[in-house]
Amino acid sequence: MTFSLTILGTSSAFPTSKRYPTAHVLNVCERFFLIDCGEGTQIQLRNNRIKFGKLNHIFISHLHGDHFFGLFGLISTQSLLGRKTPLHIYSPAGLESIVNNLFRAVNDVLPFELIFHEIDGKVAKLVYEDKHICVESIPLKHRIPTYGYLFKEKLKVPNIKKKFVESYKPGIKEMLNIKKGADYISSEGKVIPNEQIIIPAPKPRSYAFCSDTAYSEKIVEQLKDVDLLYHEATFLEEAKKLAKQSYHSTARQAATIAHLANAGQLIIGHFSARYKQFEPFLEEAKEFFDNTVLAKDNLLIEL
Amino acid sequence: MTFSLTILGTSSAFPTSKRYPTAHVLNVCERFFLIDCGEGTQIQLRNNRIKFGKLNHIFISHLHGDHFFGLFGLISTQSLLGRKTPLHIYSPAGLESIVNNLFRAVNDVLPFELIFHEIDGKVAKLVYEDKHICVESIPLKHRIPTYGYLFKEKLKVPNIKKKFVESYKPGIKEMLNIKKGADYISSEGKVIPNEQIIIPAPKPRSYAFCSDTAYSEKIVEQLKDVDLLYHEATFLEEAKKLAKQSYHSTARQAATIAHLANAGQLIIGHFSARYKQFEPFLEEAKEFFDNTVLAKDNLLIEL
Repeated sequence: MTFSLTILGTSSAFPTSKRYPTAHVLNVCERFFLIDCGEGTQIQLRNNRIKFGKLNHIFISHLHGDHFFGLFGLISTQSLLGRKTPLHIYSPAGLESIVNNLFRAVNDVLPFELIFHEIDGKVAKLVYEDKHICVESIPLKHRIPTYGYLFKEKLKVPNIKKKFVESYKPGIKEMLNIKKGADYISSEGKVIPNEQIIIPAPKPRSYAFCSDTAYSEKIVEQLKDVDLLYHEATFLEEAKKLAKQSYHSTARQAATIAHLANAGQLIIGHFSARYKQFEPFLEEAKEFFDNTVLAKDNLLIEL
Repeated sequence: MTFSLTILGTSSAFPTSKRYPTAHVLNVCERFFLIDCGEGTQIQLRNNRIKFGKLNHIFISHLHGDHFFGLFGLISTQSLLGRKTPLHIYSPAGLESIVNNLFRAVNDVLPFELIFHEIDGKVAKLVYEDKHICVESIPLKHRIPTYGYLFKEKLKVPNIKKKFVESYKPGIKEMLNIKKGADYISSEGKVIPNEQIIIPAPKPRSYAFCSDTAYSEKIVEQLKDVDLLYHEATFLEEAKKLAKQSYHSTARQAATIAHLANAGQLIIGHFSARYKQFEPFLEEAKEFFDNTVLAKDNLLIEL
């Protein structure tokens, strides 16, 4: 089953000529979850051939323009393309009235429903769930209410080995019990341990999106053993003071969080436009967490 | 003196992977006038190396998203870059409250003044004037109040031939009179006709922006002898009915307006995303107005 991340934009504060502002897309079994929606996100969705119709859930981290100004165009385009199915938008308080006021002001009646889900609180919450995944909010530490999002694949039921089924011909009820972890007891009373019968389900994968945030070890516990962690790194350590003042992180801090959380891989991004070279970010982060990559527009990472 | 047009976006309704939505920039003596501001305009300004600080006047044709959704990001970026000078925005009614409500909702206090100028009425009006140019509104025929803009360079005063000045050494008052068109009368009573003394000022140049609009000959008189005319051509003539229903024009209709107005050159753009080839637009238009070019993102036309 697909579980892949496409990075649409990596700039902070405003786009540059080479980098769009923040937007990520997580593909879970060909259903696409958009995380943040900076200006130009709809262009980047097209550039990455991601169909708008397969996008039903949008997660906004916070209400700074570089993280949501692309929503208006994306919603408008979906309207022009005749979308009928509801579009769910998850965000801190305030977005619903901003979006509704705008479309009301231009007399645009959308042909589909926008369903807003307000994210709040100081502790992580389950904010979305379907048969494949669940999504938790990650309370971050920024100048305004800001949430990251943790996407966790659900554990699948294991398959039963074909050879066992052919030999013992178990009934439906027995099959269900085996999938739930039961051993098999044959009609002659022979016990076959569960682990000999099943092909274990693949390990559930997970992706955590953490932008924008000051360094905060409070998130580490929730991120424990995450497979892929995106953590903002707006500055280099040399601008640590500036990072603290503006509630952003340095590459070293992002790597420290990845290390403490025992993440599988770290992506750093949201680089300040003051930097023209990004290799120093990678070097700085790798000192503390080796499996780090630099976010790039249109980067695809498959898990 | 520079008088050049850069086209930043040429798509209609929504951007495609190759075309940004509508935005034009007119450079008048290194002062830049932005006309419409679709999503991604700030990216295109960067791509065309147009400095944000030299942009003080923005003209919005109408409040459909593909013509103004880029304003929020552009204003926000100017704020982040520390702009201090006022920014003037000309548009039909409604934009001021949309922009102010948005920035108020996200608690963003801009460090510069936004000055809104409401364009209204059914007849052309002077909406802007400085020492180099004047700008008139062009009432268009669209589904909502929509205005094009006519930029007209002012007639410069002529220069006086160096040879004449050296021979006759006229006083300052006489020089001013000559520049205003007076003949010169020497101390011996000799009359030298004005046209023999002056180097005429170059012919004032003009640019008209007409998007979006149904075919309407009402605008022809105002556009008479315009040097450069941009007229939308959302559809080909085969979709004439669709053009009429949606208050847009065909390539043939755009060319007809250029012909009737005796324009110097015609640019057509705002092509519907239903078309993948644009040569047919050019062929159709050229039948009625030969000096036609297709709008392309990043096209620069110097007058």
